[in-house]
Amino acid sequence: MGKAPGTITYLGQREGAKSVVNILDYNETTFEHHKPGNLDQIVAHREPPLVSWIDVVGLSDETFIEKVGKRFGLNPLVMEDTVNTQQRPKIDEYEHYIFGVFKMLYLDEDNQLVTEHVALVLMKNCVLVFQELEDDVFNGVRERIRTKSGRIRSRGADYLFFALIDAIVDHYFVVLEHLNEQIELLEDEVYENPTKQEANKIQELKKQVLKVRRWVSPVKELVSRLIETEHPLITKDTKLFLRDVQDHSTEINETIQIYREMTMSLMEMYMSNMSNKMNEVMKVLTIMASIFIPLTFIAGIYGMNFKYMPELEWHYGYYMVWAVMVALFVGMLIFFKKKGWL
Amino acid sequence: MGKAPGTITYLGQREGAKSVVNILDYNETTFEHHKPGNLDQIVAHREPPLVSWIDVVGLSDETFIEKVGKRFGLNPLVMEDTVNTQQRPKIDEYEHYIFGVFKMLYLDEDNQLVTEHVALVLMKNCVLVFQELEDDVFNGVRERIRTKSGRIRSRGADYLFFALIDAIVDHYFVVLEHLNEQIELLEDEVYENPTKQEANKIQELKKQVLKVRRWVSPVKELVSRLIETEHPLITKDTKLFLRDVQDHSTEINETIQIYREMTMSLMEMYMSNMSNKMNEVMKVLTIMASIFIPLTFIAGIYGMNFKYMPELEWHYGYYMVWAVMVALFVGMLIFFKKKGWL
Amino acid sequence: MGKAPGTITYLGQREGAKSVVNILDYNETTFEHHKPGNLDQIVAHREPPLVSWIDVVGLSDETFIEKVGKRFGLNPLVMEDTVNTQQRPKIDEYEHYIFGVFKMLYLDEDNQLVTEHVALVLMKNCVLVFQELEDDVFNGVRERIRTKSGRIRSRGADYLFFALIDAIVDHYFVVLEHLNEQIELLEDEVYENPTKQEANKIQELKKQVLKVRRWVSPVKELVSRLIETEHPLITKDTKLFLRDVQDHSTEINETIQIYREMTMSLMEMYMSNMSNKMNEVMKVLTIMASIFIPLTFIAGIYGMNFKYMPELEWHYGYYMVWAVMVALFVGMLIFFKKKGWL
Amino acid sequence: MGKAPGTITYLGQREGAKSVVNILDYNETTFEHHKPGNLDQIVAHREPPLVSWIDVVGLSDETFIEKVGKRFGLNPLVMEDTVNTQQRPKIDEYEHYIFGVFKMLYLDEDNQLVTEHVALVLMKNCVLVFQELEDDVFNGVRERIRTKSGRIRSRGADYLFFALIDAIVDHYFVVLEHLNEQIELLEDEVYENPTKQEANKIQELKKQVLKVRRWVSPVKELVSRLIETEHPLITKDTKLFLRDVQDHSTEINETIQIYREMTMSLMEMYMSNMSNKMNEVMKVLTIMASIFIPLTFIAGIYGMNFKYMPELEWHYGYYMVWAVMVALFVGMLIFFKKKGWL
Amino acid sequence: MGKAPGTITYLGQREGAKSVVNILDYNETTFEHHKPGNLDQIVAHREPPLVSWIDVVGLSDETFIEKVGKRFGLNPLVMEDTVNTQQRPKIDEYEHYIFGVFKMLYLDEDNQLVTEHVALVLMKNCVLVFQELEDDVFNGVRERIRTKSGRIRSRGADYLFFALIDAIVDHYFVVLEHLNEQIELLEDEVYENPTKQEANKIQELKKQVLKVRRWVSPVKELVSRLIETEHPLITKDTKLFLRDVQDHSTEINETIQIYREMTMSLMEMYMSNMSNKMNEVMKVLTIMASIFIPLTFIAGIYGMNFKYMPELEWHYGYYMVWAVMVALFVGMLIFFKKKGWL
Repeated sequence: MGKAPGTITYLGQREGAKSVVNILDYNETTFEHHKPGNLDQIVAHREPPLVSWIDVVGLSDETFIEKVGKRFGLNPLVMEDTVNTQQRPKIDEYEHYIFGVFKMLYLDEDNQLVTEHVALVLMKNCVLVFQELEDDVFNGVRERIRTKSGRIRSRGADYLFFALIDAIVDHYFVVLEHLNEQIELLEDEVYENPTKQEANKIQELKKQVLKVRRWVSPVKELVSRLIETEHPLITKDTKLFLRDVQDHSTEINETIQIYREMTMSLMEMYMSNMSNKMNEVMKVLTIMASIFIPLTFIAGIYGMNFKYMPELEWHYGYYMVWAVMVALFVGMLIFFKKKGWL
Repeated sequence: MGKAPGTITYLGQREGAKSVVNILDYNETTFEHHKPGNLDQIVAHREPPLVSWIDVVGLSDETFIEKVGKRFGLNPLVMEDTVNTQQRPKIDEYEHYIFGVFKMLYLDEDNQLVTEHVALVLMKNCVLVFQELEDDVFNGVRERIRTKSGRIRSRGADYLFFALIDAIVDHYFVVLEHLNEQIELLEDEVYENPTKQEANKIQELKKQVLKVRRWVSPVKELVSRLIETEHPLITKDTKLFLRDVQDHSTEINETIQIYREMTMSLMEMYMSNMSNKMNEVMKVLTIMASIFIPLTFIAGIYGMNFKYMPELEWHYGYYMVWAVMVALFVGMLIFFKKKGWL
Repeated sequence: MGKAPGTITYLGQREGAKSVVNILDYNETTFEHHKPGNLDQIVAHREPPLVSWIDVVGLSDETFIEKVGKRFGLNPLVMEDTVNTQQRPKIDEYEHYIFGVFKMLYLDEDNQLVTEHVALVLMKNCVLVFQELEDDVFNGVRERIRTKSGRIRSRGADYLFFALIDAIVDHYFVVLEHLNEQIELLEDEVYENPTKQEANKIQELKKQVLKVRRWVSPVKELVSRLIETEHPLITKDTKLFLRDVQDHSTEINETIQIYREMTMSLMEMYMSNMSNKMNEVMKVLTIMASIFIPLTFIAGIYGMNFKYMPELEWHYGYYMVWAVMVALFVGMLIFFKKKGWL
Repeated sequence: MGKAPGTITYLGQREGAKSVVNILDYNETTFEHHKPGNLDQIVAHREPPLVSWIDVVGLSDETFIEKVGKRFGLNPLVMEDTVNTQQRPKIDEYEHYIFGVFKMLYLDEDNQLVTEHVALVLMKNCVLVFQELEDDVFNGVRERIRTKSGRIRSRGADYLFFALIDAIVDHYFVVLEHLNEQIELLEDEVYENPTKQEANKIQELKKQVLKVRRWVSPVKELVSRLIETEHPLITKDTKLFLRDVQDHSTEINETIQIYREMTMSLMEMYMSNMSNKMNEVMKVLTIMASIFIPLTFIAGIYGMNFKYMPELEWHYGYYMVWAVMVALFVGMLIFFKKKGWL
Repeated sequence: MGKAPGTITYLGQREGAKSVVNILDYNETTFEHHKPGNLDQIVAHREPPLVSWIDVVGLSDETFIEKVGKRFGLNPLVMEDTVNTQQRPKIDEYEHYIFGVFKMLYLDEDNQLVTEHVALVLMKNCVLVFQELEDDVFNGVRERIRTKSGRIRSRGADYLFFALIDAIVDHYFVVLEHLNEQIELLEDEVYENPTKQEANKIQELKKQVLKVRRWVSPVKELVSRLIETEHPLITKDTKLFLRDVQDHSTEINETIQIYREMTMSLMEMYMSNMSNKMNEVMKVLTIMASIFIPLTFIAGIYGMNFKYMPELEWHYGYYMVWAVMVALFVGMLIFFKKKGWL
């Protein structure tokens, strides 16, 4: 608030850790893994002969991040967005580089949804990655580079850029699958025994779907922009692959839309089951009260103490009253049976 | 997850079956049916003199599918989508071919909705079809080729390509008809006797409509793209026919939209009928209780054991109490009659 | 299903009737009415000197329709749509003619909504009309031609084409008026006495509005296309009139939209009135039970048979109990009065 | 229905009045007010040296209106829309004039919403106005011309045209303010004491908002069209002012949208308050019944006439029963207190 | 109402205060703060050598504002919008200046939402600001100019223009955060104990979200227009920064959309909890009534005074009745336990 634009301030919750840098250099034949000790060793990989993937993990050391940005000639606005973990997904094209912000979504060991901010900078022969945690979303890409599987080793930095975005989007499917499971679980619970807790869970789920949608839905349009760009850093060949990512993003957006409708249906289901339960409760009350209140009335009649009540003197009066009561009881049962309440 | 893009992995549930290939070659005068024994015999039909329909049934044999793709010069991304049964409908244009993914929807013998993934490749003089099951959606087309009915035998591969899409879209109408019947059935059930099961069926139906919409709704736009394309493989003449398919797709989308609104109305109907039932139950309870509770009170009065209760000594006390009670009873009935509760 | 595209199959429910043909030829000075006996006499009116309105009534005789189409040089797809009564409204431009499908909506003698499929072909100096029933939607146009009222006699075939569409669209207003009346009727019913039947009627009305919207809403866009077309058969002068039809279509679509919202409000109204009724029922029950249950309890106390109950011996005990009861009764009434339940 | 397009038929409900014509002629220095006695005197003001505002009040005299139209060279379609009070707002450009239909909305003395149809024709140096009633929406403009306030006297007919539209749109704000007051009034009523009448009023309000939206919402787009037109009658200078009207229209549309959502919220509020009231009723019933039914049962026990009931003989039996009853009563109160129902 | 367009009328509620003017002049090396005593001293800063920020606080002195506008050569329409506090956000480009209206939203000391109207005029080397209150939204910008922090001192008037808009938009986030807190608070309240007050608060919140959306949502499009403009006053460099503001506006709009859905969910949650409470109340009533009404009936039976009731004579009759009652009681408990109502 009130800070000058371009001020580099970390807004996330993973404070205090020193940034760790890993560099993978590769081409068709070579593969090197560097752990640079100082800034100069990092900057040496700017405009390298091999394709260079510079991975900066840990964003809370703002001074270090700022220095990296300056040495690579990046705009201060870019560096601001890099450490601003609240930044929504974006793609910005600059003359010498393309800057992208994305959200990694994945499940931790306790199956809790984790959101991680990641910034990618595609430069000539080099991709600069800023991320918060040393996690496994990009592990598949690292593995493919190391083992030379697929075509990644024989292609340029823009293919690496694509491969990273592809890995991020691929993980969205896992999260969607998880949401789907939760929806189906809740569906069963709501059908079996809807309580206040279920209503609460439905609302929680709704909010989670909204949250996922917020981070995930802009991706489709960003990738479209990458496909349509005329920036020289993105080759026509890579655009073919980006079309695939675009496809996936479309599907993800559609799926989230369906999940939203399903959570709404869940709430409807819940309300209708509540109504059902109420109906059942009311029926029990009505049947019990409707049968026994008239019978009690009859008993009350003959509990009166009038001096002259001829029936009381009848020898079979008591049994006749019983007969009337049983008849009433059976009549009521038939009535309720006919109404379908039994 | 984490696999390189272009990796060919079958994701469906029809595992283990060997792929079976059928080839129909035809022109205005000739018609041949081949069952090729090996790959070379298949590839012989690439760029054939006659129009060739190569139908590959069974997608779980990834190595075979990959080989076919390579021999026909198809992009690995194409082959990935071919066996990815989760792939949403798409049309991708390449220099020498047009690739399309669609979903066949039809009802099996038990009237259950079946979704089948199908991939179509239009090449020069040849249409390559990859499908999961040897089913009857394309039977009509086969029959027309065999019996030379319609104009299919006198036209090129792009007309065949259209005819196959047309057959897929035509089957959507059957599925819609089936959904319509289910909606009308449920409407009657909900009107007659809404129970928890009906609410559940409505939600199931809603989900089915969502599912059908997901597979069916992209088709309209894909066909539009085929109509607007300048790809040389699609002739102007065939575009006229595609306009017809586009028309049908529009109608299908509108119909699904109407079904969605109808399922929503169903739920509303259900809720309003639940309310009605509750009202009826409450009325019975209220009438019974309102009539007999005051009467029981009167009986209670004269059941008291006070020494000095003059009424008890009256000779016609008992009959007077009865008179009062009957008057009250009748008064209550009139009151409820007036309220319209009887 | 499975038929070749372009197959001419009648799908309506007005089977068996032979097609009847009426031809009106006219210009500023001449007016002739022909009832051609055979196909050749009909075809004679193709590219006529006068403006010719050829009206074919009855679509179930597919062979006859097909022959007419062939003789007038129409595309088989056009003829398929002509007899396909399920076809949604459309405008297709061909080199020598413009083909349109519309739905006539009108009320029969029993005030039931009737949908009739109509196909129009505008050719040079001639409009070919295919319709199912010999009805009165076009009667106004016929009358104006016969009596030379308005400007129709002094204009070309495209003006006739416009006049027919205008007549169809004009009738939509009658149907909308009818729907409006039904909505207002239901509004009163729902306000006065909402029962299960009313809920059902609301849902029926909703479905009717959806159905009307389906047939009527595409017209606006079709007319827009006619206005923007550069097809030589539509003169600039006639486009001015079509702008008027477009205006009406816009209004119709807006009105239907409003009706949809009104039917939704009706359902809401119904639900809120159900709630009200329930509240009223519950209040009666609560008042009766709350007043008499405590009084009965007091009576019960003094109905106990304990040997030592001093009150029973008091001379005015009975009257004191009555006093307490009356006090309680009045207190309860005041309590409920204060709550606003009486 | 069935009339030829261009037939001039008055559709409003202000029948029978003779049309009254007022003419204001003005420029920077001159101001004249004419009350022409016959048609020729009116037509004399066509293409006048001064700016001329010809105001025709009363539309039911169709012959007179038609004559005016003819003498000013207006298209019959224009004249049809002029007297068609059902016509939705529109702007049509013709070669020599621009024709606009708008709806004046204002409140009469009883605060009832009045809709008045008005047609404006902008011609060279002259604005022709057709309106139903001699009302005060344009009074402000008249006043400004007479008193030479603002810049209206120094500008042309297109500025007058703008000023009239501006006056119409300005009055929409008054109507919106009125709707706002009604919504807030109903909000209080629904909060205080929701009855069936309130539900009805909400639905009435909803319909009124729909109605206002219908007449008001097209204005924005019409004004946009005036701004973008290249018609020579509208000067660039006036477009600057029209931009202001466009601004107001945007705001009006947004406000109506907000009102729609507020009326929906009102209904929700109503339903939730109904639920609350029901809950309160149920609680009273449950508390009364739950306390006194068990007590009555105990009294009933000792009202039994068994020969051998030891308690009845106990000297303090009666008092012990009272003790038990009081304990039960207090226990129940505590239970309900804990549940928060008291 | 009825006033000529361009009439300068203050519509806000901060009447009577004299306008106070502050002027900041600065460039890279110089910084001056002026408090001009009269109009001439203000106008001296028009087209100044340094960048000049002229801040006019207090809009109710219409004559003064009008004079300022005239001296700076601003269009009367601009001045009208400047003092019209009802004016929605807008950007209007004129030949020599760009005019913008925005709404500042912030929280006062009592955490109440305050809306303040602000008008910005970007001229050559000078930004003219008209605002209602001397508040702190722009304090950060003032501070940065004074302390020469960030790049503001080294840039032109368009950067200042951007910085002011940026400060306004930045404050929207504070308001959103506040709304978020309120939503979460209400969520807890609704979950714990939903009463009529909670329903009311939800509706209030809904209206507040609507209000914020109304003022905030147009900003995105306005900033986009600034980015796309070719007006010479906005440099390409500043557009880069405006892109950032656009980003923030997009996020704000998305967040408000999410808040709207969350308030709707709140209402749903409320209704479902009301249903739950009702269910609980009904269960207590049903259980109490169903257990004790039959027992009371049995007691009533043996309270009858028939002469011949054999059971009454039995020695253990009383105890047998007790046994039957206890059995019934336990049976009922088991029944309700099984139903899950206990």
